[in-house]
This record gives sequence, structure tokens and C-alpha cells, in this order.
Amino acid sequence: MKNEISIADLYKIQPIGREITISGWVRTFRSNRFIALNDGSTAANFQCVVDFEKFEDSLLKRITTGSCVRVKGIVTKSLGKGQPIELQVQTIEILGDSDAEKYPLQPKKHSLEFLREIAHLRPRTTTFGAIFRIRHHLAFAIHEYFNKNGFFYIHSPIITASDAEGAGEMFNVSVLDKRNIPLTENGEVDYSKDFFGKEANLTVSGQLEAELLAMGLGKVYTFGPTFRAENSNTARHLAEFWMIEPEMAFYELKDNMDLAEDFLKYIIKYALTHAADDLAILDQRLAEEEKSKPADQRSMPLLEKLKFVTENAFQRITYTEAIDILLQSPYHKKKKFQFPVEWGIDLQSEHERYLVEKHFNSPVIITDYPAAIKAFYMRLNDDGKTVRAMDILVPGIGEIVGGSQREERYDVLLSKIRQFGISEESLWWYLDTRRFGTCPHSGFGLGFERLVQFVTGMSNIRDVIPFPRTPGNCEF
Amino acid sequence: MKNEISIADLYKIQPIGREITISGWVRTFRSNRFIALNDGSTAANFQCVVDFEKFEDSLLKRITTGSCVRVKGIVTKSLGKGQPIELQVQTIEILGDSDAEKYPLQPKKHSLEFLREIAHLRPRTTTFGAIFRIRHHLAFAIHEYFNKNGFFYIHSPIITASDAEGAGEMFNVSVLDKRNIPLTENGEVDYSKDFFGKEANLTVSGQLEAELLAMGLGKVYTFGPTFRAENSNTARHLAEFWMIEPEMAFYELKDNMDLAEDFLKYIIKYALTHAADDLAILDQRLAEEEKSKPADQRSMPLLEKLKFVTENAFQRITYTEAIDILLQSPYHKKKKFQFPVEWGIDLQSEHERYLVEKHFNSPVIITDYPAAIKAFYMRLNDDGKTVRAMDILVPGIGEIVGGSQREERYDVLLSKIRQFGISEESLWWYLDTRRFGTCPHSGFGLGFERLVQFVTGMSNIRDVIPFPRTPGNCEF
Repeated sequence: MKNEISIADLYKIQPIGREITISGWVRTFRSNRFIALNDGSTAANFQCVVDFEKFEDSLLKRITTGSCVRVKGIVTKSLGKGQPIELQVQTIEILGDSDAEKYPLQPKKHSLEFLREIAHLRPRTTTFGAIFRIRHHLAFAIHEYFNKNGFFYIHSPIITASDAEGAGEMFNVSVLDKRNIPLTENGEVDYSKDFFGKEANLTVSGQLEAELLAMGLGKVYTFGPTFRAENSNTARHLAEFWMIEPEMAFYELKDNMDLAEDFLKYIIKYALTHAADDLAILDQRLAEEEKSKPADQRSMPLLEKLKFVTENAFQRITYTEAIDILLQSPYHKKKKFQFPVEWGIDLQSEHERYLVEKHFNSPVIITDYPAAIKAFYMRLNDDGKTVRAMDILVPGIGEIVGGSQREERYDVLLSKIRQFGISEESLWWYLDTRRFGTCPHSGFGLGFERLVQFVTGMSNIRDVIPFPRTPGNCEF
Repeated sequence: MKNEISIADLYKIQPIGREITISGWVRTFRSNRFIALNDGSTAANFQCVVDFEKFEDSLLKRITTGSCVRVKGIVTKSLGKGQPIELQVQTIEILGDSDAEKYPLQPKKHSLEFLREIAHLRPRTTTFGAIFRIRHHLAFAIHEYFNKNGFFYIHSPIITASDAEGAGEMFNVSVLDKRNIPLTENGEVDYSKDFFGKEANLTVSGQLEAELLAMGLGKVYTFGPTFRAENSNTARHLAEFWMIEPEMAFYELKDNMDLAEDFLKYIIKYALTHAADDLAILDQRLAEEEKSKPADQRSMPLLEKLKFVTENAFQRITYTEAIDILLQSPYHKKKKFQFPVEWGIDLQSEHERYLVEKHFNSPVIITDYPAAIKAFYMRLNDDGKTVRAMDILVPGIGEIVGGSQREERYDVLLSKIRQFGISEESLWWYLDTRRFGTCPHSGFGLGFERLVQFVTGMSNIRDVIPFPRTPGNCEF
């Protein structure tokens, strides 16, 4: 019932001597005497002490791992070491049984792979409870940061007829009967018969629409799902993931970098403050996992890494400087890089890792990439060959933020659109913003799951979103 | 640039005597002397006073409606009546021209229909600036409310192989080549060849997945896009809209109603406090619009209506009582209802309006609907014929919230699933929650655009979302 107290509040208030009622799920029932109860409000279980002589055996037998119970009793100081307070149980009501033989979550360590198969139950585990609560705190910190700083949250469309990146494999959205697809005289699919009267896809980015809003509201941000129909079965890719995309009128590239750095530090600090208990659990989990690695391959402990990021300035270098560092590196000289290094290449993850983890040992912002390897909407520098792009790389994850100052000059933008082979008719509204009251503006995209991975230390992206969508996987 | 002050802050701080720089878009340029500048941070323009003798004619001519300028000058008290402070301009930089002949937004009243066609530019108008800022404040208030009250924000999947409502027209999501659809031996579409290896659609609700999380985390909520492929070209329907769906373990129907009422009042109060200026603009707009109606058909002024809702208890009646009220009503006796009234019917919008606007003149919560007209997952009452549903109806909008206590009993749920002809194999994970540690729980859904309509007084739902998706309309 709503008026019951949560375990999180119980630990805060510590109402010793008071009679209370709590509900939750049994994690363990030890010696027919100690129920470790969890209600999801916090990682910590609450110890409920049962005098087994006062209860029927038939009831005690139903207190199994996974069962749901409501208990009433008196809060007392705990004599045990594990907790400050506990409950002396007076009444027990079984709300939901859990057959100990059949319940998949036994009180033992399960593999992450196994838990992924029962993603509907994994929020009941200590690890995933912690991950999803941290995910919440990060999301809230993002909204709080932007709200405090005068940004407006906007919803860019999910179904779209445009393709922001001029590339990217997209999911088609349709109501056409697949057994009877209408065709035009030329044998093309006749999308005029479809729901929207034209071909429609799931968005890969809300940026272009966010720019439209920034030209009216000044500073805006999106926080919504985006999609990639890439057949990538890796620990870094999801077909459906959440992105945060701020877009600011009158911001130039440096303002954009300053914002992104301040923003990342704010939300990580917020998590350190508001999710300390859950982070401690994941810090411990990661330390256990790292033990199996050779000492020189272990990563920085989780909490240490997060504090390091909030307390140190991000390194800022140009792409050209990055290439120079790589060319001068002992790695390059010893031919340890698998991919070639030369000006013009798209940095590979081995290059990014070298810069972040070996050379700087810190988050790095790389700017001014070659125009040819970046999107059409990035502002061309006066050198005519680089654009005002910025990528932020962090240890263990690689690119976490990608952004740029946008090309605000109509003629330059139009020639870029043509050069990239994008249909200018389909972007008439985007071009309009450069025809009427254009201004310098910038923005970036943060992959939310990459951020959650970075903060939780989870190495597989499928473990930081409740129900991951990947090739061949759309369960739940 | 980032370090420029926003107009919103300028009005707050009123730094008289200080030299400042601001950037924004010209709303009007009066008598070659007064620029009304807007930067989107607030509805209010900022008056910039230009001594035309100090500037070249060629520059003054470029200060047109829609152009983007950066001005530097000294803040002074304003001698005019419209504003407390103004800027004595020293320098003017044109950031972006706007050809007065071609710019679609002239400084005059445009119809909402026309503005919908230029949805990429309408955020630059006073009305839509206000609407989208209010939309932001409502969204933030929602996150703040839940965060304060111990709820965790979760992301339920957008692409799904399940159909929560057991009905609803859905958009199919696919990467299959439509000119070459693979078929099985039986002539069915062979979805095993598709991206997810099975048929996948856009979600109509995140509720079932939210329930899974609530069984681990206790109290959760979603705030994400949902979809309906209904061919409804009305002022009340969108193909893509945003929903908020809280789901709470241990909440029964009454707790659910208490939460929904408290929640709605909180977010409306938040808007009244944090978006007072923008609401005043829309209050005025609605009053103008209402003038064209006969006096007895005018609705309550916007601000009055919002305050009324926050200050009065919602009426709570059962469906059976609602039917009795309708049967006893003079409307029914005079045969003014178009649709028949009898126990078992789905209430029509004319019935809802009568209850809310004529009989109670207040928001109304109707509970305990006939099982046959509600979804399979709603908890069956002991009478065997009604379910613990609740709908909240508000003046002018009708249903804004729909919720229920969920059926937590495995056997009852299974028989309902079979009765509704839903595949129980596809819901194995949902049924699992009732097999392992089930508990009473409840939740509801709030249509975000309906809420924004209610708070802004906009009568067409296409005017409260930046880029509406409707049949035949997927522009921008």
C-alpha cells in the first residue's frame, strides 16, 4: 500500500521503537529466522527477524527466495554487524509465492549472459537493481542540468522521412501489406499508398530538427530513442538506444566544448552524490571481475575513474595534433597499430585508446577533423579542408560525445549537400533556417547507454538498458 | 557566444548602467529606431534603441523581421511603457539576413493552419515559443515529481514483438526489401529473415515492460514515444505521441487514484509557477479566440481553469454511478445524447463531456468499468463483471489518464489472456511475474500531448508537438 514506508526511507529515518509495515521480495531466508527483504527502493536489504515458534511451519515454508511478503513489526537497533536497524516481525502475509525449484534467480552468482536471457527478472538482482537506479539518476541529472541552464527539452520526431546523417542503415516504418506491396509504373514501391504517403524510417538523430527549434528557442536539447539497422553483434552496439542532443544558437566550437565538458562532469558528480550505494556495489563488482585479469591489464577502479574525470580538465587537441602524436608514438614506430596512421584517416578505436589510455590518460576532446570523414552539416574551417567537429573520448569506452559547430552559411551548406549527394529538396526546411536569420550555432550528441556503461563499469552495452534490441533479439 | 546574457536573465538581473551584448532575432524594427529582439529564452522581446544617425543606411536596411543580429550597448531604464529596461545600442552586427519579401513570418497574425505548414519556423512566433517552453516545463515537472517521490525512470522498448493492448493498429518495423519479400512455404511473410528474426512493431504502450521493472525496483515510470497506425485525421489524434506510464508495486486502485490526482495537480501548479509569462500569453490568445463564440459556449478562461483544477478535489465515481447519472440526466430524458446510454457501453465523448462539464463541472475519476470493454490485464473485481480500472476526465479534453490495478493472480490472468484470444506464448515473461513473487500493483498512462493541450488551451493536438505525425504527414 502507498502509505507503507520504503526500505530506502526506513534507513534514512531509522524509526526505532515504531511499528511499521513493509512489503518486498525475499532475497534469502536464513536459519528460519532472518529474512533479507528488498523492495527495490535501495540496494540494501532489510533484515526482518522472525521468531519461528510464533508462526506455522506451512507459512514459514512459503518464505522462499523470490517470494513477495508483507511484514509488520517493531523497528529495533540491530545486534548484528550488517545493518544499523532491523525489524522484529509480528505478522507475515505472503503476497506471492515463488517455487524455489522453478525460480530462475537462485541466491548465487549468475552469469551476465544467463541474466540477459531472463531480462524480465534481472531487475530483481543486486547488480541490475544498481545499474537501473544509476541509469535513472543519470537521466534525471541530465534534465536537471539543462533545465538549470536555460535549455528547453524538445521532442524531435521518431518517424521521419529524412536521413540526418545522409547515411546510416535505417529501419523502415510501414503499414503496407507485405504480401501485396503496391508498385509504381516503374516497378518501385508505391509509398504514396503507405500511412504517411511517403517512405518513412526510424530516426537516426534528432539533430536537424533540434536545430530548427534552437533557431526559435535559443537553447534546446532532445533526449529520445534513436535507431540503427546495422547488423553489428558487438558489446558496443544496439539497434535501439537513447541519445541526448543539445543544440545552441550563438554557440561556437569552443562554447560547445566547454558545455559538453561541464555537462559530463555535472552528471557524473550527480551520480557520485546520489547513487553512492549503488556505485559502491558496481565498484566492488568490477574489482572482482578485474581480478581475473593480469595486473597490467586491469582498468582503474570505477570510483577512482569517475572522480578522476570530474576533477581534471579534459585534454583538447586538434585532429592534426592527434595524428602527429600517433605518428611519433612508440606504438607506431614498433608497428603495433593494426591500421595505418596518416592524415585523413578515420581514427580507429586502437588509435583512440592509445591517445586516451596511454598518451594522455584522461578524457580527450579532438577537434577539427578532415571534412571528408565528417557529416555535411559541420562548419568548414578557413583552411577549406577541416571542419569544426569535436569528439570526446573517454577511457574504456572511446567516443562518448560527437558534436560540431554547424555550417550556418547557406551557400557553403548547399554546396556540401550537393557534394554529399543528398537530396536538397528533402532538406528544404533545413536550408530555410540558413535563408532566414541564420546564426552561428553548435550542438553535440551523447549516447546515453555509452554514458551508463562508463559510469557503471559494465562492459556490455546490453547490460545497461532494460530490454536490449540487437540483430535477432526483440524479446520482451 | 556562450558568455552573452540571455534576455530572460537580463529581465531578472536588470543590470542598469552596464555594457552588455545580446544576440537574437528581430521581431520588428519600428521607426528606424526600436528593435524588438527575441532570443527564445522568454516570450518577452527586448527593446534595443538605435540612434539611426550613427549607422549606415545599408546596415539599417538589413534589420528586418526575422533577421538575426548581435547588438552591444548600455542597459538603461526604459522611458516607454512596455518594458522596465532597454538597450542603448552602440554596435550592431548582422549575423543572418532575412529577405522581408520572402520570409514567411510577417509581423501579423497568421492562422494556425498556415503555421502548421511551416512547422520549422513556427517556434519563432510568440504563440509557439510559449507552447514549447510550457511543454518543457511540464516535462521537467514530471521528472521532478517522480524523482522526489522515489520513482525510477525507465526506458521501455520502442521496437517490440508484443502488443500490450491485444489490439491497436501498429506500425511494422522492417529491413526486408519490399520488392522482394521472402515468404514461407505457407505463403506467409518469412520474418525469420528480418532484422529481429520475427515480426516487430512500434510500441503502443510501455506498460507491460514497466510492470517487469516495478517487480524489481518498486516504483518506476516511463516517458517515451508511443504509436498508433490509426487512420484518424482529427484534432485529437497523432500517429506518434509521448506517454508517461508510472507503475507501482503494492499500490491498489485507491493509491493509484491518489497518486494520479496529486501528480496532475503538482505538474499544473509547477507550470503556473514556472511558466507564468507564457501562460499569460496563451490565456490572452484563448480569450481572443473565444470572443468569436456565443457567450454560452465559451470555455472557462485558461488560468482560471488551471487554478480550479489544482485547488479542488477530483470527483470519484464508479462506472455504474456514472451510468445512473446519465440515465437520470435531463439530457437523456430529452434525448439529446446521440449514442444510447445503458450499462455496458463504452462511454462516448458526449457522455464524458456531460459528466465533466455539465454535471460535476470538475475533473472526474471513473472507476470499476465493465470487464468486457477494458484490457485483459486489469484486475477483476469480486463481482466478476467489473475491473479495477480508472479513467480521469478533464474539461475540454476528455480522458487524459487511463489506468488500473493490474491482475496479479496467475490463474485469473491466464484465463483472461485466453478469453481475449491473446497468444500466451508471446507473453511468457509477463506471466512469469505472476508465477514468481507476484503482488498487488497498479499504474496509469498519461498522454503527454493531451496534457499540454489542457495546460495551453490549444484545441488541435498538432499544435502542441513540434513536428506532428498524422496520416499523410511526415514532413520535417
